[in-house]
Amino acid sequence: MLNHTHDPALRSWVASAQAEGGDFPIQNLPHGVFRPRGSSERWRGGVAIGDQILDLSRLMGSGLARPEVLAALRAAQADSLNELMALGPTAWRALRSELSRLLREDAVEQQALASCLWPQDQAEFTLPARIGDYTDFFTSWHHMRNAGRIFQPDAPPLPHFRWLPIAYHGRASTVEVSGAPVWRPQGITRLAGSDAPRLAPVERLDYELELGAWVGPGTRRGQPVPVGGAEAHLFGLSLLNDWSARDVQAFEAMPLGPFLAKNFLTTVSPWVVTLEALAPYRCALPRGTDDPPHLPHLAPPDPGMAGIDIQLQALLTPAGPGRPTVTLSRTSFRHGYWSLAQMVAHHTEGGCALRPGDLLGTGTQSGPTEGEQGCLLELTRGGQQALPLPGGGQRRYLEDGDTLVLRAWCERAGAARIGFGECRGTVQPAP
Amino acid sequence: MLNHTHDPALRSWVASAQAEGGDFPIQNLPHGVFRPRGSSERWRGGVAIGDQILDLSRLMGSGLARPEVLAALRAAQADSLNELMALGPTAWRALRSELSRLLREDAVEQQALASCLWPQDQAEFTLPARIGDYTDFFTSWHHMRNAGRIFQPDAPPLPHFRWLPIAYHGRASTVEVSGAPVWRPQGITRLAGSDAPRLAPVERLDYELELGAWVGPGTRRGQPVPVGGAEAHLFGLSLLNDWSARDVQAFEAMPLGPFLAKNFLTTVSPWVVTLEALAPYRCALPRGTDDPPHLPHLAPPDPGMAGIDIQLQALLTPAGPGRPTVTLSRTSFRHGYWSLAQMVAHHTEGGCALRPGDLLGTGTQSGPTEGEQGCLLELTRGGQQALPLPGGGQRRYLEDGDTLVLRAWCERAGAARIGFGECRGTVQPAP
Repeated sequence: MLNHTHDPALRSWVASAQAEGGDFPIQNLPHGVFRPRGSSERWRGGVAIGDQILDLSRLMGSGLARPEVLAALRAAQADSLNELMALGPTAWRALRSELSRLLREDAVEQQALASCLWPQDQAEFTLPARIGDYTDFFTSWHHMRNAGRIFQPDAPPLPHFRWLPIAYHGRASTVEVSGAPVWRPQGITRLAGSDAPRLAPVERLDYELELGAWVGPGTRRGQPVPVGGAEAHLFGLSLLNDWSARDVQAFEAMPLGPFLAKNFLTTVSPWVVTLEALAPYRCALPRGTDDPPHLPHLAPPDPGMAGIDIQLQALLTPAGPGRPTVTLSRTSFRHGYWSLAQMVAHHTEGGCALRPGDLLGTGTQSGPTEGEQGCLLELTRGGQQALPLPGGGQRRYLEDGDTLVLRAWCERAGAARIGFGECRGTVQPAP
Repeated sequence: MLNHTHDPALRSWVASAQAEGGDFPIQNLPHGVFRPRGSSERWRGGVAIGDQILDLSRLMGSGLARPEVLAALRAAQADSLNELMALGPTAWRALRSELSRLLREDAVEQQALASCLWPQDQAEFTLPARIGDYTDFFTSWHHMRNAGRIFQPDAPPLPHFRWLPIAYHGRASTVEVSGAPVWRPQGITRLAGSDAPRLAPVERLDYELELGAWVGPGTRRGQPVPVGGAEAHLFGLSLLNDWSARDVQAFEAMPLGPFLAKNFLTTVSPWVVTLEALAPYRCALPRGTDDPPHLPHLAPPDPGMAGIDIQLQALLTPAGPGRPTVTLSRTSFRHGYWSLAQMVAHHTEGGCALRPGDLLGTGTQSGPTEGEQGCLLELTRGGQQALPLPGGGQRRYLEDGDTLVLRAWCERAGAARIGFGECRGTVQPAP
């Protein structure tokens, strides 16, 4: 799986790609869609390198890319990545190899390519793809246990959790890119001690620390995808914040699941980190001695590679001037119970069609220890235990003016650091 | 609300529009997207009239339509109706009025227009619109009570049912037009008396008798729509069959709602009957003396017009040669608890954005008496009471080879009959 593009010794002629702790070295090369900030130029695809973006529409115009990758490059420079996603792993791999070649410090094209760079801090981003359908999974055992103890303290773990990756359909029309305003929604809830529900701005606004997987080549209705071939249908990963109104969720969600509690906004990071870039960080997922065997169509052919060790973090900057930022959650994707491939295999086992650009949320990622909970519902035990903030004050749920940032990265000795950038949102009063 | 297009005395020069009991008189004029059957011609919009289709792309080319409706006509003849849906009620009304004028028996254009007709039985249809998001509601009190007694015999009615129209997000990628093959899905279920779930073709395949409402002009995120203005965001209605795998639903649906139990297929009828065509059939919805008052944003400004008296029917033709067709369900949309306008107002109250062409299912429609249940789950008490079939045999759930047809129509003295055509599907073995 590893090839020359993963070599940790690779360096780029873009100096910032070598920055210590930077998210975007030459071994990463995530895709996104951007334009100069504040302009009305057309959206176009780019690849992050250091603190710059390689503008792929300019690269295509430059004639510097090898002819055999032009079809993939044309798709990658479009105003959405759906067409690139549809092309599949062979095309993605060839394009990555060519971009790696062009960005290496010994590339003879570097002078000509300098005009294809645009600073990230002078860019604005849009969604990486037109999302046909958005599905949110529920794959973290620890999140399930923590949330279950809050909503139903006496209930045992969900009996089917270990047999299939639970999921529900989310709302595609309200998935937006990092930075979109987080307007506190109104919702119908019941006041404690009151019989009559009311419509009011929600009080229990929460974040959920997730990753989002972007579907690559689609599937036809009636065509199940075996787990062994499932990752060929995934292009890459972004950060995903599944903003949630817990008071609405508690009131509305029986028996058909969350609806308005989730569909007011979901945000994703602008950069899509390809599965190929994450290859050095594959790992096994935990299996308990009492876990039942996987059903055959969900059994990973190579269990040691089912997971990815992606560090996950949620940071809060409380409302108000000069407040220090505090880490709320710090965990890893390697604690998950179900893998990305199992999510795809389960999603399609009944014949459901996937389309390029569909988005699969992993569900809130929580780990086994304190501080690894991926949302305030868990961290505050359903609002019962307020979190003290450095510099004073506390939080049970998010308040107007709070800024919540998700970050993710992979890091280990012997491999280049692979970062995701950030997924950011600031809570604003109900409109 | 009523105008000259509703006049029951209107007659068309298309003779079959006057057929006794026909679905498509000149007072109906539903929109759809079709092409000659078996051809590879482009899909184009048309309007049903009698047993014919008025090909709107030909009409536009004919130059016979008044200039003031050309923008609407161009949208209505496209390969999907999204653009027409986005235009809104004023444009829809003007187009309907013009089509009514051109199809009336005294229209001087009738000789020229005859070349714009295409027989329905020589046409094939595609989805009326590209569906961005599909939402399915749960608006029938009787369905809720019947299904609740099966799944949780001792539980009281859902406490929030009368406070808000419950809904969940469905899968847009597997909504197909009437006639699409209904492949029996595989799914993970637990066998009675067995601890270990398994993947197998589902055994409890069911239909759900619903209507689907097509969203017209969209809304922005953060923009709630008050109930009084909500119908301006709805273009019209189709029949909708929310095919369901009850065994999968029972195993998977806690706590996030139905997923694979529903997303293998949803079918809609090809014709969209406009809300304007249904204006003669407005009615009040039932209110019980113990029903709580509506929350202000869900209170209909004109309760006597909140509902529509649409007759609904589900017909089964059992597998096998020469089997007689039997009516399984026969009810009316007027028994619903929540109105279309309330569905839109609730959907947007937290700021969720709607887009033209989004689809809102009403949920299974059931009435208060025996035979009015809108699915087999209710009719057979969860499979406990088999339905005897005329000519022998019985059904608990659908079997391979069964054909299920939904029909709907409005009929009363002093108004023209308005029909919906049909929504058809034949169950086929798991692929």
